[in-house]
Amino acid sequence: MAQFNQLQSVEKLRELERMPLDLSHEGILTPKRIEEMTASAAGISMLYATERISNNVLEALFDLAKETNALEKMQAMQNGEVINRIEGFECENRMVLHAAMRDFFDSQNETDKTKEAAALAYAELEKLKSFLLDADKHGFTDLVQVGIGGSDLGPRAIYLALESYKKSDKNVHFISNVDPDDAHKVLDGLDLKKTLVVVVSKSGGTLETLTNEELVKKRFTDQGLSPNEHFLAVTGKGSPMDDPSKYRESFYIWDYIGGRYSVTSMVGCVELAFAFGMEKVLDFLRGAATMDKVALSTDFKSNLPLLGALIGIWNRNFLHCTTCAVIPYSQALIRFSAHLQQLDMESNGKRIDKSGEQVDYETGPIIWGEPGTNGQHSFYQCIHQGTSIVPIEFIGFKESQFGDDLLVKGTNSQEKLLSNLFAQSLGLAVGKKDDNPNKYFPGNRPNHILLAKKCDPFTVGALLSYFENKVAFQGFIWNINSFDQEGVQLGKVLANQFIDVFSKKRSGEEIDPKSFPLGFSFLNKLDDI
Amino acid sequence: MAQFNQLQSVEKLRELERMPLDLSHEGILTPKRIEEMTASAAGISMLYATERISNNVLEALFDLAKETNALEKMQAMQNGEVINRIEGFECENRMVLHAAMRDFFDSQNETDKTKEAAALAYAELEKLKSFLLDADKHGFTDLVQVGIGGSDLGPRAIYLALESYKKSDKNVHFISNVDPDDAHKVLDGLDLKKTLVVVVSKSGGTLETLTNEELVKKRFTDQGLSPNEHFLAVTGKGSPMDDPSKYRESFYIWDYIGGRYSVTSMVGCVELAFAFGMEKVLDFLRGAATMDKVALSTDFKSNLPLLGALIGIWNRNFLHCTTCAVIPYSQALIRFSAHLQQLDMESNGKRIDKSGEQVDYETGPIIWGEPGTNGQHSFYQCIHQGTSIVPIEFIGFKESQFGDDLLVKGTNSQEKLLSNLFAQSLGLAVGKKDDNPNKYFPGNRPNHILLAKKCDPFTVGALLSYFENKVAFQGFIWNINSFDQEGVQLGKVLANQFIDVFSKKRSGEEIDPKSFPLGFSFLNKLDDI
Repeated sequence: MAQFNQLQSVEKLRELERMPLDLSHEGILTPKRIEEMTASAAGISMLYATERISNNVLEALFDLAKETNALEKMQAMQNGEVINRIEGFECENRMVLHAAMRDFFDSQNETDKTKEAAALAYAELEKLKSFLLDADKHGFTDLVQVGIGGSDLGPRAIYLALESYKKSDKNVHFISNVDPDDAHKVLDGLDLKKTLVVVVSKSGGTLETLTNEELVKKRFTDQGLSPNEHFLAVTGKGSPMDDPSKYRESFYIWDYIGGRYSVTSMVGCVELAFAFGMEKVLDFLRGAATMDKVALSTDFKSNLPLLGALIGIWNRNFLHCTTCAVIPYSQALIRFSAHLQQLDMESNGKRIDKSGEQVDYETGPIIWGEPGTNGQHSFYQCIHQGTSIVPIEFIGFKESQFGDDLLVKGTNSQEKLLSNLFAQSLGLAVGKKDDNPNKYFPGNRPNHILLAKKCDPFTVGALLSYFENKVAFQGFIWNINSFDQEGVQLGKVLANQFIDVFSKKRSGEEIDPKSFPLGFSFLNKLDDI
Repeated sequence: MAQFNQLQSVEKLRELERMPLDLSHEGILTPKRIEEMTASAAGISMLYATERISNNVLEALFDLAKETNALEKMQAMQNGEVINRIEGFECENRMVLHAAMRDFFDSQNETDKTKEAAALAYAELEKLKSFLLDADKHGFTDLVQVGIGGSDLGPRAIYLALESYKKSDKNVHFISNVDPDDAHKVLDGLDLKKTLVVVVSKSGGTLETLTNEELVKKRFTDQGLSPNEHFLAVTGKGSPMDDPSKYRESFYIWDYIGGRYSVTSMVGCVELAFAFGMEKVLDFLRGAATMDKVALSTDFKSNLPLLGALIGIWNRNFLHCTTCAVIPYSQALIRFSAHLQQLDMESNGKRIDKSGEQVDYETGPIIWGEPGTNGQHSFYQCIHQGTSIVPIEFIGFKESQFGDDLLVKGTNSQEKLLSNLFAQSLGLAVGKKDDNPNKYFPGNRPNHILLAKKCDPFTVGALLSYFENKVAFQGFIWNINSFDQEGVQLGKVLANQFIDVFSKKRSGEEIDPKSFPLGFSFLNKLDDI
């Protein structure tokens, strides 16, 4: 395949980027445009009239998708082809089958690989169902999830998103950071007799998680409780943690499930089912599966993940924006942006393509965000009047989760929330003229809205899958491997060198500073404090 | 004053930016460099050998500070001059005196303005002390802070930072978002009879806060409780909320305290003193005051806030980095980056200078961050191997807060945390060669570390003030007004237009869509859902 900058569609887009649409110009953003530039699928509408995209740009972006075989690559991924690889270099060489973790509903992918993966996943769900019936009998009320990265961010974000659907007698807690203060805070006040601990590590060798497992285990043994009656494992078959004698129950994941794509596997499902029950979890999985099918649609205009991916590429490679904010107008999605930060930046923060060549174009942007309206009282000054343009992906819901709402001055809070969401989308696009330069808003700041009825399990599943597939599409189009994470290795190696010094110091062993001169210079600074 | 791009020091820096130091080159990062490039004050050490800064660059940056009279402007701010203004245009025209909120300790600023402001602030602290004695007698155990933006992010970040110092019988909760689900979650499970509610709004007219006040009030009246026995106000004198008949107690702030700079005023102190007691709050204020004095130091090499500001300007204007991540290796600082995001982006996300001229240089960057080591399992892939360079400000502590720590494989968790922090700083700077392009780390990615003994009240105060003064210095050097926020107005105006439509729809009033055509187009989308 031609390199990104040699593609015909990219050449066309480079022409179009010279005179991009200016949303602040009179007559550009019209009711007709808003009406036309809407795409809907799986209960989610994308309103993208407030992006700096003309019909010509949209057409060229669709050509880009065709020229890079984006849809065929999505199908290949969902079919279980070995796409996690770099041509000619040592690499993970794995299938990427997170979509199979929820492929139990209509119109399943029917390759041998996907059928096998879906059957294995379903068997774990059945095992989980039995386990929870048993756990209920034993009166467990609390569950602590010990994990980090993909074993924490996604499961936590989804738990918080759906917390209002929680069973009243169940609570879930999370320990992730190796900072001992984190575990301390969570464990204080828990009745350990009624507490399950689920330790999650695909490799079974994650430093932070194993350290925290020991820390938590000690609390149990200090109280005379047997860890193996309380601890569960979620890990890869054959990992160092795959030792059923140490755990009340073990659940499995497979090498074709990347950490950041693992929420719909047992990594997320154990705690979600404990808190919400199996039925809600199935709704959540159904939402994700439904959006997976949308990602295979040849009708590009309603293929939401592809559309979102292409808009992102326009903003990144042609409007040259370094960051992208994801701003949900929903307190329930308070940690959703943190999950997407991992999902996107760990997948697409890459500098070589799938042949091992260094890329000469920008890949994944910096993803960040906080819920609205809170952000309006924080960083919105900068996104309205700052010198760097920040494209925004807004998320909003027609209805609140609780319905516990109060009319103040003629409207309820949900209406106020939506009013603010629409106002920001509109204001960023059109701006405002003013003779006072300090009250002048340049506008022309690109954004779009994902709008759904309610932040319920099905919709949260669909949103999660929207972003998973959007990120995958961007990786396909940039021709990078979105499924490995070699960039985290160097830090691990160096951290072990420091840990080794600390450990030797404790044991009184002599260490030659010349063996690690830069490291010792840092450590000396610690002694000065 | 000459414009930024006409300054001699900027011309010099433009020359230096053509051949900036490459940290990945053999022999650049040495023990000697690490030893020399350390600055210490107020119990905090800044290790900046891993920035792309040579001695020539440092000298030119100091010249930039001199040429822009940065130190004189800092003194003018702390002296109470009217610096919140834009020459020749309608503006807030106010003093900026948040430093006076804690100027009760050694070597105070002695202008009439600062003495008056400090005396007023101290009187509020005295009032708070009496109030808390009384509250204790009445057995209040919980306090709910209702506020948004500056009345939420800072107070919440500091509360969480110091939570391990909390009195065991006191708990603080926060409601900020207008999303009704937010209030619902917080209020469930509270014993309202023992609960105080502190409503915080300087203007007394913040939509979200007043809406949430009504929502919370209704919970009290539904239970037959009198809101005015439970509710406190923190507001500006003469604001619509300044009505002592409606509140058990009212505390005051003044127009010279910007929301994002208000943590050390009653906006933060009421909840902090309730949770931690007056003594801890005084330690916190003492830390902040100590760093305020450091910001006045003419010894640039130990003026930490100025040094931090200059490094940031080098990365932003000369190395052309759009974002800056703040990454504390401490779970206690989990929301500190969110506070800094507001502090920095609302202050310096500006496009006109203090004469109302549009700037032709970059101002405030996008600030974001999550605690380490969590981030290592998330976005570090992108910061090590992505195509955009992200400068990082790390924060670390020698000791943990709880001391509840366990030796696993020869080291405790705090040592593992520090090992990871140092490893990342080092790895980002030097990178790693490898024949496999996927395992190659380019390095040369700028970062520095703020290192302190412990995340205690004094240190947290000093850190807070470090960032407040760093942001102010950057504003002084960019010649922008860091103290207003006109960029948030447009959204408010447009939101009210939408709210008006919702309200009229509810009351059955006819509305002509032509009065707000774009608005109606958005609202139609809601009907389609």
